[in-house]
Amino acid sequence: MTQHSTVGAGSSSAPLYRRDRFLLSDEVVYLDGNSLGPLPASVPERMAAAVREEWGGSLVKGWNEAGWFDLPWRIAAQIAPLVGAEPGSIAVGDSTSVNLFKVLGAALGLVGPRRRILSDAGNFPTDLYIADGLTKLVGDGYHVTPLPSEDVEAAIGDDVAIVMLTEVDYRTGRRRDMKAVTEAAHAAGAIVIWDLAHSAGAFPVRLSECRADFAVGCGYKFLNGGPGAPAFLYVAPRHAGAVAPVIAGWMGHDAPFAFESAYRPGQGLRKMQAGTPPILSMTALHEALTLFDDVDLSALEAESRRLGDLFIAEVERRCPDLELAAPRDAVARGSQVSFRHPDGYAIMQALIERNVIGDFRAPDILRFGITPLYTGEDDIRRASETIEGILRNRLWDADAYRVRAAVT
Amino acid sequence: MTQHSTVGAGSSSAPLYRRDRFLLSDEVVYLDGNSLGPLPASVPERMAAAVREEWGGSLVKGWNEAGWFDLPWRIAAQIAPLVGAEPGSIAVGDSTSVNLFKVLGAALGLVGPRRRILSDAGNFPTDLYIADGLTKLVGDGYHVTPLPSEDVEAAIGDDVAIVMLTEVDYRTGRRRDMKAVTEAAHAAGAIVIWDLAHSAGAFPVRLSECRADFAVGCGYKFLNGGPGAPAFLYVAPRHAGAVAPVIAGWMGHDAPFAFESAYRPGQGLRKMQAGTPPILSMTALHEALTLFDDVDLSALEAESRRLGDLFIAEVERRCPDLELAAPRDAVARGSQVSFRHPDGYAIMQALIERNVIGDFRAPDILRFGITPLYTGEDDIRRASETIEGILRNRLWDADAYRVRAAVT
Repeated sequence: MTQHSTVGAGSSSAPLYRRDRFLLSDEVVYLDGNSLGPLPASVPERMAAAVREEWGGSLVKGWNEAGWFDLPWRIAAQIAPLVGAEPGSIAVGDSTSVNLFKVLGAALGLVGPRRRILSDAGNFPTDLYIADGLTKLVGDGYHVTPLPSEDVEAAIGDDVAIVMLTEVDYRTGRRRDMKAVTEAAHAAGAIVIWDLAHSAGAFPVRLSECRADFAVGCGYKFLNGGPGAPAFLYVAPRHAGAVAPVIAGWMGHDAPFAFESAYRPGQGLRKMQAGTPPILSMTALHEALTLFDDVDLSALEAESRRLGDLFIAEVERRCPDLELAAPRDAVARGSQVSFRHPDGYAIMQALIERNVIGDFRAPDILRFGITPLYTGEDDIRRASETIEGILRNRLWDADAYRVRAAVT
Repeated sequence: MTQHSTVGAGSSSAPLYRRDRFLLSDEVVYLDGNSLGPLPASVPERMAAAVREEWGGSLVKGWNEAGWFDLPWRIAAQIAPLVGAEPGSIAVGDSTSVNLFKVLGAALGLVGPRRRILSDAGNFPTDLYIADGLTKLVGDGYHVTPLPSEDVEAAIGDDVAIVMLTEVDYRTGRRRDMKAVTEAAHAAGAIVIWDLAHSAGAFPVRLSECRADFAVGCGYKFLNGGPGAPAFLYVAPRHAGAVAPVIAGWMGHDAPFAFESAYRPGQGLRKMQAGTPPILSMTALHEALTLFDDVDLSALEAESRRLGDLFIAEVERRCPDLELAAPRDAVARGSQVSFRHPDGYAIMQALIERNVIGDFRAPDILRFGITPLYTGEDDIRRASETIEGILRNRLWDADAYRVRAAVT
């Protein structure tokens, strides 16, 4: 077995492992690309040009000359194949939270008399908060029912308007069967909204094939778009004509620069755009996504599973105090591995100080993203050894590692 | 009279005119800073550091180490004095459209049984679209009544829930009397929302002094934050405790990294934040705002009026075919001058080709922003002469100038 897989070669013969295309110190084992992807090597130069030449040089003409006006749609075209979406069915902009608000609001128009939004109590909190806030705003009996993760699928009945789930659990990495859940929801007459925060860029997502109705996703995790990168949303083409945008901004108007006083929704998903797009953040995301031009996502998934299995085996062999929180079966797991430990926070701080970077998720989860584009077997072994050393010698047991930072 | 005013000196003795602190070609007369502010000279280096050192070097630790988590609040503290807002009463993030959605949604919780949102039919379209979309989402009888600009103030009666106005009209530059309108609204028991898109960074806005209830503003016009820069919102401290966020995202939670399943609104205006902030775009805005550290806004306003008066006088003397669309009285005018002409679009394209950059707003407005930080008398005279030459020789009368670009 080679250190770095080239199984992603496919017809392009490009190696899957491409750490040299990231600016990532050799000293770092970066297992947190599921929180913030590292800096693609081509981004700094592209950003410098966007700042100096486009903003500085073209000034307001950049909206046309530099293609800013269409930049969100060029990014959408990059993301669509990564998530198995039909051309024209992705819109890019705003945060994941705002995008979820948009698709939930749009979906409410399709559910007839049903009022229940079914979700997972362990869903990423913003999804639950956003849905709850939206139902309170709309009133009319809409409500969110969060159930224990394992009870959600059985609860999909004919009183359910919308099933709102995240494909990969942010804590445990458990991956839901998108196709089976979507089919069950449709059989019950419900709409499904998928949160792809931990899916897009990690493995082949099959929105169209699974007949998903709506989805949202994140630009700054596996897509490497930079801190707080713009997010995206998906609307199945069969719904695109029927949905009305609830945040109806001027950039979603059919003719924004006609400055008409009445709103006319833009063509296709243009109407889902609200305000002026943040071009600098968009530029970084657009450039970062070029890294995926020659990535075979199925090969990426296979390599992630192989490295994840290796990591579990190494850690379990070395660290009996860590309890596996992720599914042991790689097929039921997203591109991350998680372990539980009551002192997880301090252990993670000790790890980070030793340049093995993962993150901690309350209450007790040590979380490690597996990203074969810049992570190989050597990294997995080094991470495992470092964890072992920290636990064996109780190196985490220091006051400095217990101080909680604002962001964990 | 000197070419470049230093009336902004104040106690800092810093000159108001500071074109050398922008990367702006000497060949350009830039009269479109009310659409997109030019590039501040210190931004490229700051952005390069944010990309390479913070994102590339700190990776996910940047949220704490590089201060990303608090960046929106540091920007808010920069903006507050520019708009006369109390400390802690500004929140930064998202687009102006989304911010308007947020404050309108919040304001609906304060209006009791009233249901009418009064606005100006000539308001910037996104404000009308957003309000209309929100009222349709909420139902319950809420509705928007756009009236002709000159009829709005007289229509503020006891059936009005919210008066939603833009302080400076984006087409004509007409500036409303914020204090008088706010007082009239309060006397009628209504809430006032001000859109400061063409105010913030152009002259001293006095939100607190005028007892405004809510406001929104734009980061990429007079604040020079870059294309699509994050926007901001204002909530008067007397309302901050009572309002509930309608887009209730995780970054507005009291403890985002506790990952609690139930939403608890964050302290102060933290709750108005929704998703993860776009750090790269935020960084540019933060750096750009340092340009205002030593600007005397009253002096800026005075100089803008002087240059605006000069521009009107020069253009009217040279170009009898242009009809003044802006108020002649500088006190009733924002920091822009507008003229009407049936061939305004083509004339503006001819001007832009000659490096006098303003913009066109349908149906017939030639719009020129006046920004004394980088515009002096020479620029005003050169712009006037160029317009004169184009009109006198019908240089605009060419097919190439009639092709409408996506963004005007």
